[in-house]
Amino acid sequence: MTVFPDLQRLVRPDSIAVVGASDTAGSIGRRTLDNVTKHSDFSGEIYLVNARREAIDGRICYPDVTSLPAAPDVALVAVPARAVMDSLHQCADRGVKFAVILTSGFGELGEDGLKVQRQMTELANASGMRIYGPNCPGFTNMVDRIGMTFSPAFADDTNIGPIGIATQGGGLGRNLVQAGERGVGVAMWASLGNAVDLDVADFIHYLVGDDRIKVICTLLEGINDGARLLAAFDEAAQAGKPVVTLKVGHSPYGVAAVRSHTAALAGAAEVNSAVFEQMGVIEVDDTDEIMDVAWLLARAMPPARPRIAVFGGSGGAVALTADHIGAAGLELAELDEKTVAELTEILPAYAAVRNPVDTTATTISDPSLLERSLEVVANDPNVDIVLLPIPIDYGAHSAASTAAFARIQQQVDIPLLPIWMSDRRGPAWQTLVSAGMSSPRSLSKAVLTVRRWAWFGGWRAAYDAGRSTRPLLLSRPSGTAALRLSGDVSNELAAKDWLRQCGIDVPRSSLTRTDAEAAAVGASGERLVAKVVSADIAHKSDVGGVVTGVHGPDDAVLARTHILDAVSSHHPDARIDGVAFEEMIPDDGTDMIVGVHCDPGFGHMLTVGIGGLHVETLNDVRRALLPISESQAHRLVRSLRSWEILQGARGEEPRDVDGFVRLLLKVSDIVAANVDRIEEIDLNPVRVRPTGSRRPVTVLDALIITTGRPAERARNVHP
Amino acid sequence: MTVFPDLQRLVRPDSIAVVGASDTAGSIGRRTLDNVTKHSDFSGEIYLVNARREAIDGRICYPDVTSLPAAPDVALVAVPARAVMDSLHQCADRGVKFAVILTSGFGELGEDGLKVQRQMTELANASGMRIYGPNCPGFTNMVDRIGMTFSPAFADDTNIGPIGIATQGGGLGRNLVQAGERGVGVAMWASLGNAVDLDVADFIHYLVGDDRIKVICTLLEGINDGARLLAAFDEAAQAGKPVVTLKVGHSPYGVAAVRSHTAALAGAAEVNSAVFEQMGVIEVDDTDEIMDVAWLLARAMPPARPRIAVFGGSGGAVALTADHIGAAGLELAELDEKTVAELTEILPAYAAVRNPVDTTATTISDPSLLERSLEVVANDPNVDIVLLPIPIDYGAHSAASTAAFARIQQQVDIPLLPIWMSDRRGPAWQTLVSAGMSSPRSLSKAVLTVRRWAWFGGWRAAYDAGRSTRPLLLSRPSGTAALRLSGDVSNELAAKDWLRQCGIDVPRSSLTRTDAEAAAVGASGERLVAKVVSADIAHKSDVGGVVTGVHGPDDAVLARTHILDAVSSHHPDARIDGVAFEEMIPDDGTDMIVGVHCDPGFGHMLTVGIGGLHVETLNDVRRALLPISESQAHRLVRSLRSWEILQGARGEEPRDVDGFVRLLLKVSDIVAANVDRIEEIDLNPVRVRPTGSRRPVTVLDALIITTGRPAERARNVHP
Repeated sequence: MTVFPDLQRLVRPDSIAVVGASDTAGSIGRRTLDNVTKHSDFSGEIYLVNARREAIDGRICYPDVTSLPAAPDVALVAVPARAVMDSLHQCADRGVKFAVILTSGFGELGEDGLKVQRQMTELANASGMRIYGPNCPGFTNMVDRIGMTFSPAFADDTNIGPIGIATQGGGLGRNLVQAGERGVGVAMWASLGNAVDLDVADFIHYLVGDDRIKVICTLLEGINDGARLLAAFDEAAQAGKPVVTLKVGHSPYGVAAVRSHTAALAGAAEVNSAVFEQMGVIEVDDTDEIMDVAWLLARAMPPARPRIAVFGGSGGAVALTADHIGAAGLELAELDEKTVAELTEILPAYAAVRNPVDTTATTISDPSLLERSLEVVANDPNVDIVLLPIPIDYGAHSAASTAAFARIQQQVDIPLLPIWMSDRRGPAWQTLVSAGMSSPRSLSKAVLTVRRWAWFGGWRAAYDAGRSTRPLLLSRPSGTAALRLSGDVSNELAAKDWLRQCGIDVPRSSLTRTDAEAAAVGASGERLVAKVVSADIAHKSDVGGVVTGVHGPDDAVLARTHILDAVSSHHPDARIDGVAFEEMIPDDGTDMIVGVHCDPGFGHMLTVGIGGLHVETLNDVRRALLPISESQAHRLVRSLRSWEILQGARGEEPRDVDGFVRLLLKVSDIVAANVDRIEEIDLNPVRVRPTGSRRPVTVLDALIITTGRPAERARNVHP
Repeated sequence: MTVFPDLQRLVRPDSIAVVGASDTAGSIGRRTLDNVTKHSDFSGEIYLVNARREAIDGRICYPDVTSLPAAPDVALVAVPARAVMDSLHQCADRGVKFAVILTSGFGELGEDGLKVQRQMTELANASGMRIYGPNCPGFTNMVDRIGMTFSPAFADDTNIGPIGIATQGGGLGRNLVQAGERGVGVAMWASLGNAVDLDVADFIHYLVGDDRIKVICTLLEGINDGARLLAAFDEAAQAGKPVVTLKVGHSPYGVAAVRSHTAALAGAAEVNSAVFEQMGVIEVDDTDEIMDVAWLLARAMPPARPRIAVFGGSGGAVALTADHIGAAGLELAELDEKTVAELTEILPAYAAVRNPVDTTATTISDPSLLERSLEVVANDPNVDIVLLPIPIDYGAHSAASTAAFARIQQQVDIPLLPIWMSDRRGPAWQTLVSAGMSSPRSLSKAVLTVRRWAWFGGWRAAYDAGRSTRPLLLSRPSGTAALRLSGDVSNELAAKDWLRQCGIDVPRSSLTRTDAEAAAVGASGERLVAKVVSADIAHKSDVGGVVTGVHGPDDAVLARTHILDAVSSHHPDARIDGVAFEEMIPDDGTDMIVGVHCDPGFGHMLTVGIGGLHVETLNDVRRALLPISESQAHRLVRSLRSWEILQGARGEEPRDVDGFVRLLLKVSDIVAANVDRIEEIDLNPVRVRPTGSRRPVTVLDALIITTGRPAERARNVHP
């Protein structure tokens, strides 16, 4: 169970010390002091620490932290890098609760700086004083108006609202805060810098607990502790607060740049993205997109499948908007007949009164038409959101329109989303900003925003219906005792035997250790595949370890002899457990792959894909943290690009997807029962046959790697 | 050969009549008059036509067009819809060269309006007077400062530059013009409205010929005349002027909205996009994206494969930029060692001196570092463009940075592209605007812009190297006489025979009309496939018209009997030409599909895809107008998502792509030689075998539909 610290006294301290307070214009110490004393509404004690001044701005300076008359809740440390550790020790000794290190020049410089950072972490662990930073702009509490930051921009951070931000870097973080300029209200921003102790997860936890926060935004370069991040996401989900994230590292260039910038590892983008998706975290690609979707979520929570109306006075703009909506896989609302009738009455004959609604430019000459018709659309019971594309800034005309938008927004609960498309930003734009009706920066970004908003609605509905699971790292289920792994499953035969015991269909198989045993098995007359059984041989086919089409006792003995000769010539040292004879499975279905690996950050993760050329050339796989629910498993399979193949492409019969989902759930249960033992599972191929088949799903080859067994072992390949 | 009109006297008329000039404030007649008389620098004659006024603004009013003392070059028609036709007739009779109809209320109202529009088209054709509009804001000539428009915004259209715009709709068109607000300079804008006569293609032609224009932008809802558009694109390509386009209609919602808005057909998006790509037209998805890429092109033409540098003071922002560059498939420049050495000297130790360059925030305190280091990067011989992500507006600090950017831009030929990421737009933003260094609206849009710019560089390099072809509609090649189609190719056998004559490998085959003939063919002892031969039966397998594995004379007779019985019971009326026996082709390669169809707008188009599940479930096909060059054919095949399969996925041998390309070129030649005869060709499957095979490429089934033959006939499917 992850335990998060209580950050109340950091967010709203009773007392603050500015260590390194300065009267040198432009210095970090001066700017920080100004923010605390001049630009904050802070009524608590403020202590200045500066050994070389008696007083600054008429406030007494203490020579060091040790001399402070009382222990402050927060010490803002702005001394030069070489003096930081000494100040920190004094802070810890004096009983400071939180030390915020603004100073740079540590881990980002290389090994020497990393060494100092490790000392900071140790100090935090040993003393109980929590450390924030270093190499960061500090903590910006806008809603309580306390600027524990050196940023000269704090004085302008006045657009307060229900968004909480937790980032690593400072530059991109402040970019988010500046969305205030277009009416997006931010409550507070934590920028953790090198994060030697407190990290983004701690602040997500805090923001979940603060009632003034509706939406949490986060920017991640590296992920140091996946489990804590998962726990924080889980808390947000439970509290019903959406989390929006931007994670750098979707390309090799980005991964390399992150390493250079923060010495952090970006992690595998596909793993991170799968985790975000599963936890209901909305992942975006750009900083403006974070604030777009956060603000729409702050204005209104989405239904499970939003029905969208498009309304405007430019036929071209509403057509383009509808086009984007269709291309994004979103749904245009079908307007109520009453709405259509009323619009027909209000608008001229050449207006388009079905969604998308084109009022035509008539509304420029008679703005009342615009307001009356929008009111009708916004009150239509079939509409969950109205998009208002505005291609042109027509000065006062446009301002009249946006004022009407703002008035209608006051009357309805669904969000009206204006799309300001022009590069000109006149009074009409300002009207929207003042009304809190922030527009994304372009039409395409607006539709992207709605797509993400709608996605969250769908995720939330599934979550609320109990169709989601909590990752093993958070839930640590006891697991079914019957599925508990005891013996050795290091070779294919043992792995399959165990899977069979777990209730999974695998080919019938007999292990033979002598020619006589082989002959006895071959005597069945069935067509068989002979395979060497050895934990030391990964690619059996490559070394002559597989013979197909074995038929009859003599043939079985021949096959056994061939295999043992061939294998021993390639791998003289391999331990051979024998030769297995397996029933031959005809090519009678679709091959899937099912994999499990244990991600170092997030724990056991399932990978599902369609086998053969599709997985290899198109990388068409989907991932999810285990355990998964039936609904999640179905969604995973359906979201494969090659999903149609399972539905029966080329006139073939549909495959037994339910049976395949049952296999996934069984694998999930198996991992849950053996979290401590299973490193990796590869079921490849898994044959999925048409619905109604006697054996709908059969695992043709299996590799299970258990804890302690070398993980770097090459994966098995079905012959 | 497409003949375009000479629009000189429309763009720069010697005289203008305002028909429907008005003194009613806010009316279209008043606004138009004001634009011509007050907001234009127009020194030619201006005639006012208004039957109910003696004079307006001290200018004499003529009662009608007929009474005008001379024939004006341009008549701006702003009379009510019911009076428009009469005015037009007078204009034509009086010798007006161009009538610009601003009035609305025609085709957009429905059938009655469309009828009037047809009269307009007839008048234009009969009289030689060219008509512009109706239902449009007019023609906005900013570079010559002549506003032949009713738009009240014309007075503000003052940011002149080398971009020419031709659109259908007015709302989205003016949106483009307003990009002037961020420093994008526009020379002129034609907004054609319902386009009863002059259309977008005519203005692309004009813009190609005007030396003041560097880049042409166009917005399309419907495409009425594909051939004229192709001809205009072709002229632009020859002149080396890039064309950027946004075409509505990528989703069913958009297609429906276009129909509702303009009564135009959107056309198939995949066909349009393939045409744009082939003609070097840069297709974008949003209006801001048009101006982003147009402006970058106006500032600098791209090399074939640009090497990108990223430079900034925020480690997070440069990392995110690099991440996007990688995800877009673009290339980061490898900085010269001299550059790295100089940066190491200029910047602090913790800066990142390899691309992406992170100067760190040090440059805020010492802006000279920024300028010196950017100068080094911008002069690096390995760098073709520098991206400058700016996450924060830091007021005066940022303004100093952007002023430095502008100074360096003056010194170098490569473009510096600032990326203004913040929602705050202070003096630093204005500095960029004034310097003509327009920023896209977000980081993701900036990288998208560079991707398109780079794409055009690659296209241009191929074009300049003569590796492109001109579509059949433009070139009408004579074609090789030997490939001229004479006989009937309506059944599979005849189609394949002809393909064989053309030098294409098809299975050996014998048509049999009697049992004796069948027995004789069967006597070869080879394994054969028997197929019914009939132009009336599309799906042979479905009706028992195919028997595989035929072996020996008796078996051949049996197969023939079975086929004739089965087919006649399903299709008693089908004309049967006989039964063909074809060599059986083993499953020894990768199946491709090759198709040709004649697009009603653009002419003959080739479709290429990988067969089987890939084409059916993933729609993995690529298209190109015929004829194609060898280089184009290679690019087409390589751009398939499933391209890796041809390279030899799963350890298989690489397929003979060169042989497949030869087939595509042969098909191209065949169509070129039979432009008037061929409606459709379907070669499916085409077996492509490993390189070095004796028969590298074999067409296993073929359907050819010639002119006059019902095109709706169902396509053939290989048994």
